[in-house]
Parts: sequence; C-alpha cells; structure tokens
Amino acid sequence: MAKRTVYCGRVSEEYLDQKVTLKGWVQKRRDLGGLIFIDLRDREGIVQVVFNPEESKAAWEIADQCRSEYVVEITGTVIRRDAGSVNKKMATGEFEIKGEDITILNSAKTPPFSIEDEQNISDEVRLKYRYMDLRRPKMAKNLIMRHRLTQSVRRFLDNNDFLDIETPYLAKSTPEGARDYLVPSRVHAGHFYALPQSPQILKQLLMTAGFDRYYQIVRCFRDEDLRGDRQPEFTQIDIETSFLTAEEIQEYTEQMIAQVMKDVRGVEVTLPFPRMTWDDAMERYGSDKPDTRFDMELIDVTEIAAATDFKVFRMASDNGGVVKALNAKGAADKYSRKELDRLGQFVGQFGAKGLAWIKVDENGELTGPIAKFMGGVSDELKKATNAEAGDVLMFAADQFLTAVTALGAVRSKVGKELGLIDEDRFDYLWIVDWPQFEYDQELGRYVSAHHPFTMPMEKDIPNLKEHPEKVYAQAYDIVLNGYELGGGSIRINTRELQEQVFETLGFTRESANEQFGFLLEALDYGFPPIGGIALGLDRFAMLLAGEDNIREVIAFPKNGKAADPMSDAPSTVSPLQLYELSIDVTNVEE
Amino acid sequence: MAKRTVYCGRVSEEYLDQKVTLKGWVQKRRDLGGLIFIDLRDREGIVQVVFNPEESKAAWEIADQCRSEYVVEITGTVIRRDAGSVNKKMATGEFEIKGEDITILNSAKTPPFSIEDEQNISDEVRLKYRYMDLRRPKMAKNLIMRHRLTQSVRRFLDNNDFLDIETPYLAKSTPEGARDYLVPSRVHAGHFYALPQSPQILKQLLMTAGFDRYYQIVRCFRDEDLRGDRQPEFTQIDIETSFLTAEEIQEYTEQMIAQVMKDVRGVEVTLPFPRMTWDDAMERYGSDKPDTRFDMELIDVTEIAAATDFKVFRMASDNGGVVKALNAKGAADKYSRKELDRLGQFVGQFGAKGLAWIKVDENGELTGPIAKFMGGVSDELKKATNAEAGDVLMFAADQFLTAVTALGAVRSKVGKELGLIDEDRFDYLWIVDWPQFEYDQELGRYVSAHHPFTMPMEKDIPNLKEHPEKVYAQAYDIVLNGYELGGGSIRINTRELQEQVFETLGFTRESANEQFGFLLEALDYGFPPIGGIALGLDRFAMLLAGEDNIREVIAFPKNGKAADPMSDAPSTVSPLQLYELSIDVTNVEE
Repeated sequence: MAKRTVYCGRVSEEYLDQKVTLKGWVQKRRDLGGLIFIDLRDREGIVQVVFNPEESKAAWEIADQCRSEYVVEITGTVIRRDAGSVNKKMATGEFEIKGEDITILNSAKTPPFSIEDEQNISDEVRLKYRYMDLRRPKMAKNLIMRHRLTQSVRRFLDNNDFLDIETPYLAKSTPEGARDYLVPSRVHAGHFYALPQSPQILKQLLMTAGFDRYYQIVRCFRDEDLRGDRQPEFTQIDIETSFLTAEEIQEYTEQMIAQVMKDVRGVEVTLPFPRMTWDDAMERYGSDKPDTRFDMELIDVTEIAAATDFKVFRMASDNGGVVKALNAKGAADKYSRKELDRLGQFVGQFGAKGLAWIKVDENGELTGPIAKFMGGVSDELKKATNAEAGDVLMFAADQFLTAVTALGAVRSKVGKELGLIDEDRFDYLWIVDWPQFEYDQELGRYVSAHHPFTMPMEKDIPNLKEHPEKVYAQAYDIVLNGYELGGGSIRINTRELQEQVFETLGFTRESANEQFGFLLEALDYGFPPIGGIALGLDRFAMLLAGEDNIREVIAFPKNGKAADPMSDAPSTVSPLQLYELSIDVTNVEE
Repeated sequence: MAKRTVYCGRVSEEYLDQKVTLKGWVQKRRDLGGLIFIDLRDREGIVQVVFNPEESKAAWEIADQCRSEYVVEITGTVIRRDAGSVNKKMATGEFEIKGEDITILNSAKTPPFSIEDEQNISDEVRLKYRYMDLRRPKMAKNLIMRHRLTQSVRRFLDNNDFLDIETPYLAKSTPEGARDYLVPSRVHAGHFYALPQSPQILKQLLMTAGFDRYYQIVRCFRDEDLRGDRQPEFTQIDIETSFLTAEEIQEYTEQMIAQVMKDVRGVEVTLPFPRMTWDDAMERYGSDKPDTRFDMELIDVTEIAAATDFKVFRMASDNGGVVKALNAKGAADKYSRKELDRLGQFVGQFGAKGLAWIKVDENGELTGPIAKFMGGVSDELKKATNAEAGDVLMFAADQFLTAVTALGAVRSKVGKELGLIDEDRFDYLWIVDWPQFEYDQELGRYVSAHHPFTMPMEKDIPNLKEHPEKVYAQAYDIVLNGYELGGGSIRINTRELQEQVFETLGFTRESANEQFGFLLEALDYGFPPIGGIALGLDRFAMLLAGEDNIREVIAFPKNGKAADPMSDAPSTVSPLQLYELSIDVTNVEE
C-alpha cells in the first residue's frame, strides 16, 4: 500500500497539479463518453476522479470493475475542473483527480440502502446496518463534531486546573433515583453491583480527598423507559469543585460553553448568560427549561378572571389557584375550533382539566364559547393580554403548578406550530433558586428536586422539618433552547444537615446509614465546601448538530426497546454463565 | 469566601511579599514559643503558615483551635524563611506565610490514620477510607500524573486526526475470551447485556463505517480472578486505523509513547524502539514480554548436554526437547543449595520438572550434584555459558516452550534478587511475529494467541486448516520493563478468511454466525484494510509512577475479592429489583 497523501474531502487549491494518493469508498461510478468517473468518499468528504483509457488503459480497466462501496486506493494528479463542470454542491467541486493508478482493496456487495443523506430508511434497518448508516456524510459529520466538542471541553477544563479522574462503573446500588442496571457478582453470590446513574457521591468524595477540581466525561446508566432524547446509557460532562461559590461554578461553565461554541460552531456567545429564578420561569414560561427563542409569555389574569361569571375561572381563583393566559398573536385563523379542541386534549396529560380560549375578531370583539362570560372585563382582559384583532387567547385555570405547566406546554407546542422559533439561535439561560423538594403524590412523600446532596438556601434550613415545601436550594440548571442541558448545585458538607435532609426524604437513620453511611462518615473528616455540575453530552451534541434525536450523535445507540438490532444485544446466555453467577431466570407471567 | 489566589504547593518566589489566600487541610498544627505553626495541605503540596498573637490575636486564636484535617481558609503574606529554618524537604520550604486571617470552613474528627506517606496501613483500611487515603501526597501525585498521562495521549491522537468515538457499555455477550460481566435486561426478560471485554468488534465496524482513525480511553470488564495488576474493570487506550501497515501503526504508537514520556516524566526516549520476534524473545528470554533492563539471557546448550551422561539432559534432547541454561554471574555465594531448591520448586508452576544447577568454584571447577556428569564437556559448557569462578549455571531441560518459560521465570526472579535491574530505566520493546494460535490442553483445541480477528501472515494462510501451529500472525505487543503494555494486530478483512479462522478455533458455521454474524455480514460490504492496538492505561500509569500495583493509580479500586469496602459494593438488592429483572438468586451449595 502507498501512503495516503490527503483525505478526499480536503483536496483543495493547495494540492493543485500535485500527485496525490487517496483511499476510500466508491460513492458512485459513472461511464460517460468512454471516461469513467468515480466519486471517492472518505470521512472528510468526496472528490471526483476521472479515468481516461487513452491516458492509462490499465487503470481505466480496474476503475471499470468498481461498484458502489468498493474500497480503493487511487493515485492521480489534482487538476482544476472546467468552469462548466464545477460542482458547487461539493466542497472539492472546483477540482478533480486525473486517475493514474487504482487498486481495489476490497469489493462490496450491493448495500441494503444507498449511502446518501436524505434516505428514507426505517430506524430499525439503520441500526441493524449501523456501520453503513454511519457512512452517510451527515452521520460522519455529526460524530466528528461530537469529537470536536469533547476535545474543546477537555481543553478548557485542562487549562483551568481540572483533573480528569476515573470513577468505577461497578458501583453500589442506590435505589433513590431512577432504576439501576444491576450486575450480579460471581464471587459474592446473591450480591450485585449497580452501573452508576452518575458518579455523584464519588465525585464528592474526590473533593474531600482534596482533588479540588475534578472532571470526567463519563457514562451513566438508567434503566427507564426510553424517549427520543433518552438512552439506557448516556454520557455526562461531570464536574465538581471545592471552595467555589455557585456563581463561580456557573462562570466556569459559561466560559466552557463559550469555548465550545467558538470551537465547534464558530459562534461568539455573549457572557454572562441570563439568570432567571425557578419561580420566574414557572410564572412566565410554565417551564423550568423555557425556550426563550420566542416570547409569548404566560400572563397572570387571575384577578380579572375572578370578576367574570365563568365558573371554571371563578372556582380556580376561589380555591387558591390561578388563571393564566397566553396570547397567540394573529393565530385566530390558524387555530380552528377543532385545532383548539386538540390542544384541550393535549393539556390533559399535564393534569389540566381543559384549555379555555377566546378569539378576537376583526372588530376587536371577543368570540368563542366563553366570550359571553367576559362581558364586564373584556377591555381589561384585552389590555392585560395585549389582545388585538386576529389573536387567540388560551387559558389554563387550576392550582398554580398545574396551570402553568399545562399552559407552558401549550406555549412550546404553539410556538413550534406557528414557526415562532428562530432555529439558528442558541439561547442559553440559567435557572437558579430551585425548590429543594417536590411532593410525589404516588410515593406520598417529598423527593429531591435535584438529588439528596443538594445544599438548601441557608435562610430556609429552619423550615426543613416542618415546611419542606418552603425550602429553596442552592441549585442551578443550564438550559439551551428549551432543553435542560445540565444541572448542578452546592452540596451539603456537614453530617447534621445531610441527615436532616435524608429524614425529610423519608429515610430512617438505619436506611440512610445502610445506603449512604460511607458518605455520612466522610462528612466527619474535614469535608470542604463543594459544588459542581453535570451536562448531558449527548443532548449538547444533538443541539449543536441541529438534530432532534440523540441517536443521531451516538455511534451505536439502542433502539426504543433498549436493544441493539445489529449485534442482537441483549441476548440469552448459557446455563453455565447463570450458574456461575448464582442466578436463575424466572418465568414471568403477567 | 474569598477567592484562592494560589495553591499551597505552588507558593514560590513569584509570590514573595504578596498577600495570598489559601484553602486546604491542616496537615499539622504546632505551638512553639507562643507561635502557632500550621502546615496547610492542598493537592499541589504543603506550605507553612505562622500565626503570631502579637500581630493578629484573633487569627491566632482561631488557628489555636485547629486540629488535623480541619478545612481552613487562610490569608497572609508570603515571606522568606530565615536561612536556619529553610526546610529542604518541602518544595515550598524556603517560604512561609505570615498568617493574618483564618476561617475554619469545616472541622474534622481524628482520622483513622495519619495523612502521610509511608504509613503502614492495611489495604482494607486504606480502601474503606479511600477518600482519606487519597489525601496522602503520594496518591495525589499518582492521580495527577495519570491525568497528565491521558491528557498527553489525547493531545497526541487529536493532533494526528484520530477521532474520539464512544462505544456502548451495554453490549453483547461473547463467551470467546474471558468471563463476561452480565447485566440482566428488564425489558427483555431472560436476556442479558454483557459489559465489554474490549470494544474490539465495534472499533472494527467504525473502520468499515469510514472513520479512518479512532481512539477511545475506554473501560473494559473481565470477570476473572484478580492479581496485583488486574481489576474487574480496567482502562484501555484503544486505537484502530484504516489503510495503515503494522509498521505505521507501531510508529504512531511509539511517537505517542515518546510524547507521554516527555510530558509526564520529562524523558526523551530514542525512537524507533527495538523490535524482536516472538521466536527470538522466547529463545533468548523465555518470555513474550522480556525485561531487557538486564542481560542474563538464556543459552541453548542442548547439543552439549546431549553429550553428557546426565539422564535428564539426554532424555530432553532425545525427545526433541531442549536444554537451556542461564548464568547468574558471581552469584554462587548468594544461592545456597537451599535457595536453589526453592527455585526448583518455583519452576514447578510452569510445568518444569526441576531446575538443575552447577556452580563454578574459585579454581574454575564445576561443582554440585550433577557436576560429575559434565566431565567430558565441562570446557565446552563453560565457554558456551561464559562461566567463570563464582558463577551459578541454572538449567531447564524439557520441551522447548516448557523449558524456556520456566527458565525465563527464573531469569526474572534471579534478576530481581541479584539487583540487576536499573529501576530508572524505561525499556520499551516491540515483540512482533506472534503465533496465530496456542493449543489449549484443557479445551482440547486451538485458541487465539491474540483474538480471533487477527490477520495471519499471508504466507501462512495455506497452513490454517492442517497446521495451525505453523501459522504466524501480523500481531505485535509493546512491552515495557517486562510488562505487556499493549498489543495489537492487523485485522482480518475478508469474510472467507474470518470464517476459516473461526473454523480452526472450533466454531461451527452456526455458532460463528450466532455470535459474530453481524461482523461476518459487515465483511461483505466494503471492509477496508485495518489494524490497531490497545494499551493498558492502568498499567502504563503504574509503571510511570514506579508503583507495583495498579491500585495505586486508580481512585476507587476494588480489593482482591472484587469488592469495594468503602461503599460496600456489591450488595444485596431488593426483591422488587430482582422481580423486575425476572431473575432469582439461587442457593449455591458446593
């Protein structure tokens, strides 16, 4: 084999009139007027090679045998194409290679689908032949971008005294949180490791060990049902620091993101990113991860609504709830009654009982089923919502969280449907001052909004016992374009406070000790003030690539049933393997 | 909190007369003549702070309350110590801080052991309190060095167009090789993922996907019994390339190692590293990972031995075996008969029947139990082994592999015992031209010396069917100071050859398809010429740190029973967890 002198996709002016050696796959072979044209592809792109039988008969004959996806080595001279045959769609389209020598390194059967973007292939087939799906230029570009992203992150953190320290994947099962993936131990029959949901406790221990600044780009595992942006295993940019304030940690994170945006997207972002409290975000956007690329904020109309005769509005107000409105400007025509009914059903999944709406007709009059109840307040309502002819007002009336969450979801949906979102924008936003706990109706107890190690606001600590709902946390999320990109907090660093939080979460002293005894003990031995953050790398890569599914930025993802159709994992195993692990498969009949 | 201005260990001339803020742990507090001295420690080192009650009474009083491992923030001015009190053992020993302000950030109970190097603490206690064990300067230094090592590796690979691509940890069980760790699937009852022993197949598929150059610093898992340099999970520098020859891959690897040696140890190594064939290595050192930091090579004396009356020697020679000798120069006094008996027992574990020996006395006469049989050949023997007064000759007589392996082990042991090894040397060495297969007596069939995807030497392919033992492989190992640092090969890239190798390994067409069908299919669709290498990161870090156990360069390792005494993993899990996974624990009675 000769040495490659340049990647196909990097052929440029610099190589003009030079002899080059290329290696790659035959994207296309055409026979035109006795000449053979091969589009040769490698990870960096495609270049056209022309074989002329009058210049090299032997090479021409080999080129003639090539078929799609053959692997070849080609030597030739870079020439400039005629003005008429320049291909502006190709990065190398001003040039072509005069093919002088060609070797077939391997042949290929006809692939199950053509290696081009914009193919309409089922997800299952793409995953089964992932090694060919990844040949498509878009997938190559996505994974190369992901590489540049991690490289940029690492460079930033390396330059700021963060240490890359590995933590184990065979860890301890801690049922608090999502469901664990378990790994049976052979040596300790009946005992199990768990694959970590995150290295949270270990990174805290690295801080008490004195490492001061830690990072790891680390795999995490959650055995939950899958969605478009969830996989059984996902990758986290995991960061922990000692002796820094929440604001300092946010500053480092912003600077890291700014570096990434510059390196990966060539974009200069403005720092600092805006900060919004969780209360504000819920009030204005009905979401703890608001998409601020468009306005259409939620408007509180509780007082106005209370003065109407509409029972739903009055009841919400009388029962301590709220009435929230949003104004879909100029969308009256786009949202027919049928469409609005659809939205009414949609909000059901957020626990709302329905979506009231009012349109403003060309005369500025309110119309629709509930318009008649608005008689006395119609001017006030129009003023509060800035309603004009052609607008649709949508309302949710319920307890605060239910109402804003439902209407926040409508806001996202309608924002998309109306094309209000500028897809070229990257809106980063910090959501700060989170509640410490959420009440879980199903469990009948409080659960952590972030995790049990989050430090409460100092002023709220006295409320931990009696009024957990009033306790806010030193926690912060970073949001990008309506997605939670990451979250972090200052961590508890005294045993007393940690035990108190466990108590609020329903742990007994025994159960807390059984699961977290080693952390509690570590808190006795000189625990520094610490805090950190974790960012979802898959999601970050997805958003930077402009994709809407993280599978597009993962080399070998699982399908919606957590399986890999290519290698056929998971699979059955031998009785001997089970025997050695002291486990049996049970017959589940449900 | 004030911002830290400098790490304790980085206080230097540059900061002289400046006010600095430090954060760290109290290594030691002493009260001397009314002054309080605190040795303050952070990850970068230790600096001394002095509190004088006459200069700042308030600070002095707080300093007085400090105990070992308290976490404090100190502000003060960097001054030069008197000539008499300079501490040359401390990197910052020319300076001290005049303490002006101190805040106790957290207190600490008395630690279970003192945070200093050279403590005689049991491994179990060290692991149980790992977060304190890691505070010891040596452990901090080791993990910081490991960080610099991975950073250096990544920088080299990034600069050479390698792409960092992640592969899944939830993979398919492939019983060929070591024992898998299994992960029960909840969604697919009775099915299991396996944690990968290496991403071998997936990195090959990334090559056929066209990524051209891949790397990953990746965790691998093997459920085997543990040794000093083995852990259930270990980290690999995993590399795969397309279109490169074995020599080119070796060159990249060498350059990467040279970069690491420079970045991490400040050492310029000479390239290229020596190459030695596997045959030569076995012949001369009785090892496929010879420690070339000392000589004492094995010498073939079969012909000479055949001419003696010593039955053991004659039989070996008559049965097609060999007689190998090594000369422990000047060691006759050090190796008493008892010591030599001990070595005789030692070689038993390598299948050798014993170790014959002869000493050379001060008159140059051969002595010892078998000396009398050497009558006729004694001059010849002395010449062949360069034996002089005071030497001990040791012999192994057996079939080739048994004899050289046993004597090779003796060479390593004796080399260490005689102090022949220069511990400051880093001897890198390539072992090339490996056998493709080894015969496994227990299994009664051939197994792969590397793995089933290794490309045989082209000239040997015709022997695959009838004479597998004659087939050599395009495989190479990189050896450092007697340790296998890594191994690689050119991989098979045609279906026909891959199927033939599976056949030699005892696979039926069906079993090969069941396990490796997706790879076989991929070989049909334009598989490029590929090859790669994997280096053990833990071992590399261990050798660079001058340690002899990889636990010293892993933050949270498992103990000898694959357990973590700190978090108590593995542990029992709830019946609900097992139920959801459709598994039961069986009562194992053996």
